[in-house]
Amino acid sequence: MILSKEQLEKFVAEIEPLDDGIMDAAQYRLDHLTKPRGSLGRLESMARRVCGIRKSLTPVLKNKLILTFAGDHGVVEEGVSSVPQEVTRQMVYNFLAGGAGVNVLARHVGAEVRVIDVGVAASLDAEGLFCHKVKHGTDNMMKGPAMSEEEALAAIAVGMECGSKAISDGAQILGTGEMGIGNTTPSAALFAVLLDLDVSEVTGRGTGVDDKTLNHKIEVIRKSLAINRKLLRSPLEILAAVGGLEIAAICGMILEAARRRVPVVVDGFISSAGALVAMKLNRIALDYCFFSHLSAEQGHRHFFATTGLKPILHLDMRLGEGTGAALAMELIEASVKIITEMATFDEAGVNA
Amino acid sequence: MILSKEQLEKFVAEIEPLDDGIMDAAQYRLDHLTKPRGSLGRLESMARRVCGIRKSLTPVLKNKLILTFAGDHGVVEEGVSSVPQEVTRQMVYNFLAGGAGVNVLARHVGAEVRVIDVGVAASLDAEGLFCHKVKHGTDNMMKGPAMSEEEALAAIAVGMECGSKAISDGAQILGTGEMGIGNTTPSAALFAVLLDLDVSEVTGRGTGVDDKTLNHKIEVIRKSLAINRKLLRSPLEILAAVGGLEIAAICGMILEAARRRVPVVVDGFISSAGALVAMKLNRIALDYCFFSHLSAEQGHRHFFATTGLKPILHLDMRLGEGTGAALAMELIEASVKIITEMATFDEAGVNA
Repeated sequence: MILSKEQLEKFVAEIEPLDDGIMDAAQYRLDHLTKPRGSLGRLESMARRVCGIRKSLTPVLKNKLILTFAGDHGVVEEGVSSVPQEVTRQMVYNFLAGGAGVNVLARHVGAEVRVIDVGVAASLDAEGLFCHKVKHGTDNMMKGPAMSEEEALAAIAVGMECGSKAISDGAQILGTGEMGIGNTTPSAALFAVLLDLDVSEVTGRGTGVDDKTLNHKIEVIRKSLAINRKLLRSPLEILAAVGGLEIAAICGMILEAARRRVPVVVDGFISSAGALVAMKLNRIALDYCFFSHLSAEQGHRHFFATTGLKPILHLDMRLGEGTGAALAMELIEASVKIITEMATFDEAGVNA
Repeated sequence: MILSKEQLEKFVAEIEPLDDGIMDAAQYRLDHLTKPRGSLGRLESMARRVCGIRKSLTPVLKNKLILTFAGDHGVVEEGVSSVPQEVTRQMVYNFLAGGAGVNVLARHVGAEVRVIDVGVAASLDAEGLFCHKVKHGTDNMMKGPAMSEEEALAAIAVGMECGSKAISDGAQILGTGEMGIGNTTPSAALFAVLLDLDVSEVTGRGTGVDDKTLNHKIEVIRKSLAINRKLLRSPLEILAAVGGLEIAAICGMILEAARRRVPVVVDGFISSAGALVAMKLNRIALDYCFFSHLSAEQGHRHFFATTGLKPILHLDMRLGEGTGAALAMELIEASVKIITEMATFDEAGVNA
């Protein structure tokens, strides 16, 4: 799929607001279920929102699907990660073999995991892998833009396409996931630019760098933003200049989910960067997003504080891949069953 | 089962510490799985603890069971709740019909719910109900002790017996639950005495009382503590004087789970009061407990702040019944699968 800038604009304009009428009806039902009003807290607000997304008082979220996009980052040549780039490729094979964290947690909640090569810096071909490589890793953003605008659009299109296929295949709720050594670096860059935060606030230890490397990483991001400063205009240009291929794909997937009125669970720090770009393209896309957890990657809390969004889980996780999305999906599905399976006061003969 | 004070003491002394050797081995495995060290956060510490509880590196938590104890409270005649006492009985029937919140969430995670009448103020007899009534509700604690010491012991014994049967029936993880109109009142009283907190700090709105009733509720608890002050000595005497039958049963169930080395998931505010009594009888019992969530009932946060314990979920729930336990069980089971199902770096051929 070739996506032009104009087509992207047209596409994002097709995202519609939630259905307020259905949400009011959902609230009415929630208020008449056999429990003190509001006593299921955030489960209730999640359920109401899913109803508004699906335009239904009986939404079903049984078919869960996580899309894990893999991509590499040219900026790793600056030494911003403690892990070698080849681990991206190795982990893709681990995903396909079912041995990674996301596989275990997705199996636990009954979700399918699809692994997409959108930009691994190695030629991959394996059974079960969705091959949509745009480029063998981004370019080093400290030396210029990570991607051209066309490449960023192509990666967004991969996310849309994979999201579309997942929905056509029956997925009722989608989760985002990613793998890409070095990808906390472009994510931090995107947070800094798009939320107007200082680089040091949004830069963390990723897979676990020491103090010295952390300071170096902050410097690398500052320099990348400086060298690309003329390109930091629209969300798309910013994504191209200092983003990543898997981050762009996540952005596209979220936009497609929103356009198709399917709830989408945003995984952690890196996925939130993709969601942030989607939200800058069309703020309404956010209404379709559930933020699965507060990552232990420092900076994620600034994302939440600045946007006013609220994560569902607080488990000090920082693995990515879609692990947080897997766990949160199960809670969102639970929330919907509150509406569809709990008895009302009348039905149960309980005094209101 | 008749339980004497001496038998209770002997029983609680049988609770053994976690197995440090197994926990070290679990940590070693966690550190060699294909993920940055520590990146699954609290899932890792939960998994390690389950291994230490079960004395196994391959624990299985598939068979989940929630025990929901129902009991009434004489103190409701002081007007501390906005809901009539008969709702306890009505909700028991709702549980048995499968229409309550705990039923929906337990079904969602594949957990069985057993409903036990340990002290409902009405004669109940229905298929599926476990009848272990100690008393038709507690006495009004504002006029004297809620229970005699013998009654409290009998209720503890009910919890032990039901816990024991659940484990013998194959449960691999237990969850606590309760139903009892008015039971935030004795719970707050227990928190105040056992944690040495001011009554106003631990008293909340329960099912949703207004400001005036909240102040009255605080007064009722203060007066109850004053009139019973000579009885507020040992944990057992305190439980008898200002506790509840279902709270005592939860305490007994937790002690039994700990003695049998079975992880037990503590539901919310009221269940935490039961856990607090268990912990005062033998601090080691806590090592077997997982606190499912931070209740929106104000006071629960003081429980956590004072004890240093950490809840798993933060969803602003305040329904009780075992709803929080159901959701958290699923996460604890997930944590264990990390250890048993994830590949190590060696197994997956990934660079450590």
